[in-house]
Amino acid sequence: MSSDNKRMWIRDLQPGTKIEESYVVRSKDVRQRRGGGPYLAATLGDKTGEVAALVWENVEEIGKLLDAGVVVTVKGQVQRYNNRLQVVIRRVAKVPQNQIDETLYVRSSSEDVDILWQRLTTLIEEVQNQHLRQLLFRVISEPEVADLLRVAPAARGMHHAFRTGLLEHTVSMATMGRQLAAHYSLDADLVVAGCVLHDLGKIWELDISSSIEYTDEGRLLGHLTLEVLFVDRLIAEMDAFPDEIRRQLLHILLAHHGRYEYGSPRRPKTPEALLVHMVDLLDSQMAGMLEAINADGDSEAAWSPYSKILDRFIYRRKL
Amino acid sequence: MSSDNKRMWIRDLQPGTKIEESYVVRSKDVRQRRGGGPYLAATLGDKTGEVAALVWENVEEIGKLLDAGVVVTVKGQVQRYNNRLQVVIRRVAKVPQNQIDETLYVRSSSEDVDILWQRLTTLIEEVQNQHLRQLLFRVISEPEVADLLRVAPAARGMHHAFRTGLLEHTVSMATMGRQLAAHYSLDADLVVAGCVLHDLGKIWELDISSSIEYTDEGRLLGHLTLEVLFVDRLIAEMDAFPDEIRRQLLHILLAHHGRYEYGSPRRPKTPEALLVHMVDLLDSQMAGMLEAINADGDSEAAWSPYSKILDRFIYRRKL
Amino acid sequence: MSSDNKRMWIRDLQPGTKIEESYVVRSKDVRQRRGGGPYLAATLGDKTGEVAALVWENVEEIGKLLDAGVVVTVKGQVQRYNNRLQVVIRRVAKVPQNQIDETLYVRSSSEDVDILWQRLTTLIEEVQNQHLRQLLFRVISEPEVADLLRVAPAARGMHHAFRTGLLEHTVSMATMGRQLAAHYSLDADLVVAGCVLHDLGKIWELDISSSIEYTDEGRLLGHLTLEVLFVDRLIAEMDAFPDEIRRQLLHILLAHHGRYEYGSPRRPKTPEALLVHMVDLLDSQMAGMLEAINADGDSEAAWSPYSKILDRFIYRRKL
Amino acid sequence: MSSDNKRMWIRDLQPGTKIEESYVVRSKDVRQRRGGGPYLAATLGDKTGEVAALVWENVEEIGKLLDAGVVVTVKGQVQRYNNRLQVVIRRVAKVPQNQIDETLYVRSSSEDVDILWQRLTTLIEEVQNQHLRQLLFRVISEPEVADLLRVAPAARGMHHAFRTGLLEHTVSMATMGRQLAAHYSLDADLVVAGCVLHDLGKIWELDISSSIEYTDEGRLLGHLTLEVLFVDRLIAEMDAFPDEIRRQLLHILLAHHGRYEYGSPRRPKTPEALLVHMVDLLDSQMAGMLEAINADGDSEAAWSPYSKILDRFIYRRKL
Amino acid sequence: MSSDNKRMWIRDLQPGTKIEESYVVRSKDVRQRRGGGPYLAATLGDKTGEVAALVWENVEEIGKLLDAGVVVTVKGQVQRYNNRLQVVIRRVAKVPQNQIDETLYVRSSSEDVDILWQRLTTLIEEVQNQHLRQLLFRVISEPEVADLLRVAPAARGMHHAFRTGLLEHTVSMATMGRQLAAHYSLDADLVVAGCVLHDLGKIWELDISSSIEYTDEGRLLGHLTLEVLFVDRLIAEMDAFPDEIRRQLLHILLAHHGRYEYGSPRRPKTPEALLVHMVDLLDSQMAGMLEAINADGDSEAAWSPYSKILDRFIYRRKL
Amino acid sequence: MSSDNKRMWIRDLQPGTKIEESYVVRSKDVRQRRGGGPYLAATLGDKTGEVAALVWENVEEIGKLLDAGVVVTVKGQVQRYNNRLQVVIRRVAKVPQNQIDETLYVRSSSEDVDILWQRLTTLIEEVQNQHLRQLLFRVISEPEVADLLRVAPAARGMHHAFRTGLLEHTVSMATMGRQLAAHYSLDADLVVAGCVLHDLGKIWELDISSSIEYTDEGRLLGHLTLEVLFVDRLIAEMDAFPDEIRRQLLHILLAHHGRYEYGSPRRPKTPEALLVHMVDLLDSQMAGMLEAINADGDSEAAWSPYSKILDRFIYRRKL
Repeated sequence: MSSDNKRMWIRDLQPGTKIEESYVVRSKDVRQRRGGGPYLAATLGDKTGEVAALVWENVEEIGKLLDAGVVVTVKGQVQRYNNRLQVVIRRVAKVPQNQIDETLYVRSSSEDVDILWQRLTTLIEEVQNQHLRQLLFRVISEPEVADLLRVAPAARGMHHAFRTGLLEHTVSMATMGRQLAAHYSLDADLVVAGCVLHDLGKIWELDISSSIEYTDEGRLLGHLTLEVLFVDRLIAEMDAFPDEIRRQLLHILLAHHGRYEYGSPRRPKTPEALLVHMVDLLDSQMAGMLEAINADGDSEAAWSPYSKILDRFIYRRKL
Repeated sequence: MSSDNKRMWIRDLQPGTKIEESYVVRSKDVRQRRGGGPYLAATLGDKTGEVAALVWENVEEIGKLLDAGVVVTVKGQVQRYNNRLQVVIRRVAKVPQNQIDETLYVRSSSEDVDILWQRLTTLIEEVQNQHLRQLLFRVISEPEVADLLRVAPAARGMHHAFRTGLLEHTVSMATMGRQLAAHYSLDADLVVAGCVLHDLGKIWELDISSSIEYTDEGRLLGHLTLEVLFVDRLIAEMDAFPDEIRRQLLHILLAHHGRYEYGSPRRPKTPEALLVHMVDLLDSQMAGMLEAINADGDSEAAWSPYSKILDRFIYRRKL
Repeated sequence: MSSDNKRMWIRDLQPGTKIEESYVVRSKDVRQRRGGGPYLAATLGDKTGEVAALVWENVEEIGKLLDAGVVVTVKGQVQRYNNRLQVVIRRVAKVPQNQIDETLYVRSSSEDVDILWQRLTTLIEEVQNQHLRQLLFRVISEPEVADLLRVAPAARGMHHAFRTGLLEHTVSMATMGRQLAAHYSLDADLVVAGCVLHDLGKIWELDISSSIEYTDEGRLLGHLTLEVLFVDRLIAEMDAFPDEIRRQLLHILLAHHGRYEYGSPRRPKTPEALLVHMVDLLDSQMAGMLEAINADGDSEAAWSPYSKILDRFIYRRKL
Repeated sequence: MSSDNKRMWIRDLQPGTKIEESYVVRSKDVRQRRGGGPYLAATLGDKTGEVAALVWENVEEIGKLLDAGVVVTVKGQVQRYNNRLQVVIRRVAKVPQNQIDETLYVRSSSEDVDILWQRLTTLIEEVQNQHLRQLLFRVISEPEVADLLRVAPAARGMHHAFRTGLLEHTVSMATMGRQLAAHYSLDADLVVAGCVLHDLGKIWELDISSSIEYTDEGRLLGHLTLEVLFVDRLIAEMDAFPDEIRRQLLHILLAHHGRYEYGSPRRPKTPEALLVHMVDLLDSQMAGMLEAINADGDSEAAWSPYSKILDRFIYRRKL
Repeated sequence: MSSDNKRMWIRDLQPGTKIEESYVVRSKDVRQRRGGGPYLAATLGDKTGEVAALVWENVEEIGKLLDAGVVVTVKGQVQRYNNRLQVVIRRVAKVPQNQIDETLYVRSSSEDVDILWQRLTTLIEEVQNQHLRQLLFRVISEPEVADLLRVAPAARGMHHAFRTGLLEHTVSMATMGRQLAAHYSLDADLVVAGCVLHDLGKIWELDISSSIEYTDEGRLLGHLTLEVLFVDRLIAEMDAFPDEIRRQLLHILLAHHGRYEYGSPRRPKTPEALLVHMVDLLDSQMAGMLEAINADGDSEAAWSPYSKILDRFIYRRKL
Repeated sequence: MSSDNKRMWIRDLQPGTKIEESYVVRSKDVRQRRGGGPYLAATLGDKTGEVAALVWENVEEIGKLLDAGVVVTVKGQVQRYNNRLQVVIRRVAKVPQNQIDETLYVRSSSEDVDILWQRLTTLIEEVQNQHLRQLLFRVISEPEVADLLRVAPAARGMHHAFRTGLLEHTVSMATMGRQLAAHYSLDADLVVAGCVLHDLGKIWELDISSSIEYTDEGRLLGHLTLEVLFVDRLIAEMDAFPDEIRRQLLHILLAHHGRYEYGSPRRPKTPEALLVHMVDLLDSQMAGMLEAINADGDSEAAWSPYSKILDRFIYRRKL
């Protein structure tokens, strides 16, 4: 396996190149070769993208090594068919678990996780209300949160569906939330606290290893309830946390989807809850739109690929 | 004030009767008399019904005593106008708080609260799973629950909107839930636990004094979240409550409205959750329909008054 | 063709086995072999399940015998590709129509048809109202009904979509309907009659031979109208069937889908109609959920395959 | 009571006029006079409109004679208050049942019923298909149909909600249906038959005496099912009525509301069924709009009163 | 009529006060006095609020002067009935049209119109793109726009439904739009132009004299089309306005309601269109919520009056 | 390339035929041949239909010539596989642009374009109102309109999705509109003008070369706005076009989709606007249904292929 800065990133592959590099297997399919016997069609990935791959020889042997989620070193050659690249695989070797640097293989935020964390900390420091500030620091100091919030995605597929996507989304929202709370003379502390905590439950709802999947807990209880239970437990452990703040804060979390149909058991009934909901809506739709615009490298096409979150194509010609 | 068994219940009033009896004031309105000066239009109630009342003399004086929610002794005469009875009030006296027996004035379940409580206890005793049985007993042993569950209504207006309505609804559901769990070979313990706890949060969501109103907590957090927080806290205090039971139970509570649009943040994903939801739907719609059928005493009309919960009129002719 | 108790049921096939057995052809597709000429991809079925099958040789000849809906004796060998079994067919012979025992090939209720019929008869015997009891017996004594009700499915794909599914669904509903009518002090006879007749029209709406398809009559008129027309004709032939019973019964049939959007031209306006609707909803959703839970043999997966009727995955871990 | 051509029609009343004329009582309300005792507020109507009326003296006596639905001779004077006319009643006498000409009191089609009936007959005569033509003639020859179809309204309140409204709507639709069937080369006979029969059940669904109300049968079964049962019974009595025509015709009736949400248990699946549905939609919406435009006499206002069926105001300025 | 700073503003009225002041008549109703003859019930308003008023004497004479929309000088006395103030009117005189300062009588933005206009001008000056900047200046230089945009409301009733409400809404949106365009690296010029023009058509859609009403043009064409036609005409008159800018700008206007159901014939397909829509949604919902919170002076109630735009009550307790 | 009347139309191809003919390439796909190397799967079309085609030899060379939208001369042989025809291509030559007669290759109205144009002209001549008649003639005299309206389709896929489909739809609607305006005594001139102009914007919204695609302008602005801008510009150039006509006409265009959800920013508020909307709905749904009925040649099947516009299968058995 090559060192990081000499890696053959998937986005850099060229037709004709012979490769020997490690990738994660995103999917594998055994198909029927017409002249008898099976062949394999797989998808290989790293954090820069995905490429199709085919195995014509040693199918049975190689098939045992290729499995969705596994990291393997692949030897083969890149070809172009039907305007798309594909790798014809000749040899495969499993990479020992302790040699795997997971960050190489998963799609990830384009922003630096440490800078994002720093911005989050600053936003919390600026909270004036001591109860809320103290609560937020306790939250991000919980070891499980401190670990998971650095890597968790914000969703499985709609927007920010990549490593550190949740932190990126959280910081973006809290930054805007502060500005807009000032615009409307609202309680900026409540708004920032609501933004920071609104999707926290996703660190338990989603599991990100090689792909993003829901956990059992996530499917049965949902991130909204998971974070409400967690925050309420922390509050119970704090000294004299005012009940009025507790219920307004929990209300913001319960109402942040804005509508019953979107899974919120409450609708926003305070200006701060309305603002957190609107900023969430804005940031998720805008991210979904910008991700569609940047979804493929073809800078000439006026229209993006179909955006599922927005249910439309996006026009990407700039003035 | 007359003793209970000689009370002049509102459903027994006749035109021409002179009365002197205590009632709760459900509403009061000061209106403009055409020849100058105001008069009062009020509604008086007890647990058997409501009647209109008017004050033509001593308006200012009497007006100070009549206030929504207050229990007063009324002296006056019953008249019939426009096919409806009304009381012309001549004198009013406030009843001292310590002499008020609230149960006389609020609409109440037609079932006996002690018998309902006994049936609830029996249903819990029959739960085989020790964790669930123990949890349920702890729940109903909490002093606040033991007090409030005996009086709380199940809703503000749709069905079981009266004193002890929640307990009546809960026992009805748990009884059917046990039968139907057997029909489908499901986990009857989970179903009974789900039925018992599914609306528990309403004891904090609704306030029943003379009328039924939402509490601030109820509006901001909702009964569903209130009971999930409460049950989860009790579970945390128990020894070795299995996590699998916890999450299936909480899931039932979160999913019992069945659909996002109805305020559930999860949809039923286990057969037990589906059954609790369906039994809830059946019991609330059936109660709403039967309440409409019995809503007025006119046994000759083929059709009930309009039922708001069902958005239709009900046919009440029996075979 | 092997005798019944020695049949090679599809659920018992193993890789490597050589088979010679009769199956129904569920689908056939002619595909293009890359090195020239076509090959055949088919699906074979019996009442225990389905398996893929391929024909590489004598394609034209065998292709004439394989047709969707036909029962054939197949000679070939079982292989495993891509974690699934498939049969490579070498020879095929049509089974003469008079030697076909249809019950071997279609998916079927796991309950015994005679026992279900007995339970149905008992439920009808227990109807107290003589008009309704007599009507129900006339219904199930009509030769067409007596024949078709033993085999008809309850749906094409959502729930009870198999031989005798309609009878299983009908008996399940009537059994619960009786219990719940007692719980609410409703007219149990009307409820049982409504349950027995509510989907009767499906015997004409659906055609079950090798697969389940809608009939022209079914598509143009629908089971609801078909049964209303049929029941009304029987009533017209009876002596002095009370008009009040007739219209309440027909109302139950017209309203059993509960909502206009679900194809009911009336919404339930009597407690008995509401109950029949709710029991139908419960039994169809619960059956759909339990069928999803049992949909594949992999007992380890926590989540079922996707359930179309419920639009979700089902959690199938038991306590 | 005055003779017909000298009647004091309500639309001709003027302030100051003394009247002595017969009207139907549309509503009566006993209200509270401030200085003691009740007074009566009523609405009087005839086929030309409605007017408010008040009784200040002899309230009890007159109140016994005034009842919704009753025809009475009224003596009194017309006044203008608040820009509206009202009648101050001084004396009332009941009109003997056998002297009542109902047609004077109910809102009625502006078209002549005999001419409409003649147009209907002509449309049926032009049906080429002998089975359909014969069926339609049998339908309108049934004494009950011949009587009721001349007077029935097409609805309670949305459009054509007046005496003979159903016949007016039916003839309008059949006329357009014939034209449009030719435009699209469809089967004009089926279309005309569908138009003639599509709302026939309303003669049993609605009861028109002094006001339009649903019958019990109408509420429980609905006009759509009532006419399908009726037509199917007539067909069963005919010789050799082709089954293909029967099911296409019944399908048109079942599908004429076009959508499940509008109470149709089938959606249009033939071009003829689609056309009948669309012509029904056009005629009911257009009639609703034109009725709104003509709803009050104020020819200067650019906008109509609010139209309930269209949920909007209508612009009535012509070019 | 008193001078402006000594006016008896409606929000300052006290029971017992004798008044002589000018107000606008918002509504008038002639009602029936029981002892004979009519009386008048009216609503008087100025820019600080509304108050009920009654006329018992000289009804006919005064009735001729009181008409909705007219400004009159009223002489009378303030009373309190049923917890509300009302004015008993004794004399009324019409105020000559040329002495009326309309700004005294209509609800108006709490922000100064000149400052708002200055902020609008500054926002336009900061637009970098010369075509857009020039277009915006031409728009606000059109005499009709310059006049109407200073006074027009943003709606009839939902939010900003008062004098200068449109300008307040426009400046608020453009200010936020600039900030958020920077947050997402979008084209701030397009966003600001979209914000400034998105509701411009309301100056022709709504008519604000004493109350806010739709114009005929507004009802038939709508503000969205009115502004698109207007902007497109101005663009046609400009030199070499780039077509790409034209269509992206018009797209923003057409899409600013975000959804078809909300009356937009296009959905946002560029990031700038999405942002303008989201900022519009935020500003209108937030304004609606804040207006509900401030809707009555009772600062003690935890919950606002019902907010129609949000379909809920708002919690207004601050931390 | 053969001459027109000897062309080998696609609907006339037979298995075994050797062909040498020009077709348009509707799609091309490079696929993987199992024994190594790629092959091509394409779809060829002309105005009579489509056929699959395969290239096994000279794949690279031929692949460069085959591209979606290109017209080529193809040499090869027709085969039947899996009950469908396919062409095995051996040679391909590009047809020079100047030798291409586009009308040979696109699906086209079955009606003659000149006759349709003549009918359109007649309809306009019969318009009595001189302003409207003059406007309509100016519209169809604009060179761009005169060219495009002869070829434009009415949609991409729902109905009339073929060359000259828009003209066919327009003439059909205007013809019915005239008849129905007379039926309801409406302003036939406005109705005809509305029908002629209602979809005119589609000539700029859709681009029809070899396939039908949306233009950028069409996606961003939509046909409804495009035609409103165009018509308003023409009106501005005319002498004294009455404003009342202008706004009623523009209203018809804005409202012709009938509902917000279908993309109309206004709902019909005049009888003429309602009629144009209903006639549009009728003609598009009826055309969609009739196209489904005629969608394949199999005259024996009782049911059509699935109709996307109607979301159902259509019954096509005639009486």
